Amino acid sequence: MLIVHVHVHVKPELGEEFSRATVENARASIQEPGIVRFDVVQQQDDATRFVLIEIYRDTEAAAAHKQTAHYAKWRDAVAPMMAEPRASLKYEAVFPDLQS
Amino acid sequence: MLIVHVHVHVKPELGEEFSRATVENARASIQEPGIVRFDVVQQQDDATRFVLIEIYRDTEAAAAHKQTAHYAKWRDAVAPMMAEPRASLKYEAVFPDLQS
Repeated sequence: MLIVHVHVHVKPELGEEFSRATVENARASIQEPGIVRFDVVQQQDDATRFVLIEIYRDTEAAAAHKQTAHYAKWRDAVAPMMAEPRASLKYEAVFPDLQS
Repeated sequence: MLIVHVHVHVKPELGEEFSRATVENARASIQEPGIVRFDVVQQQDDATRFVLIEIYRDTEAAAAHKQTAHYAKWRDAVAPMMAEPRASLKYEAVFPDLQS
């Protein structure tokens, strides 16, 4: 199991546009067999900041996600919206224990 | 619905001790009626860094959590483990839509 948190900061006024593109990608992503969760959250006090919480069955599933048409479409659509490069952090589950 | 991400940085070598105390708190917390999820993750490349991903039904549920015995026990147990103050960020759900 691999958990990835992607921290996104979009340009001012682009929060809604980013949301729309990202929900479309999330809806398609959760259909992938290797993806357990694909949550998107928006910071309460700063609508230009988001976190994508991605849970993959394994590292192969994370690599497979990057090969999908919906990922490519999302990546290209949001590229001009970024206020700064995305920061991606990898985590292991502590609780709940996703192995069991 | 209220989503809170708590970023934790513990002192070197205290990752396992923090994990144990935090799993105990998480197990009790998910029994609270106002708590939807209480996930704990540990950063892959730095075992001293954690995120608690807390999903509450509403702000009252978040306040109620702080009144529980298990929260107080956890707070006191982990206080001396912190390498720096915890940072707490509040989010709204974008996907999935937790209102529906």
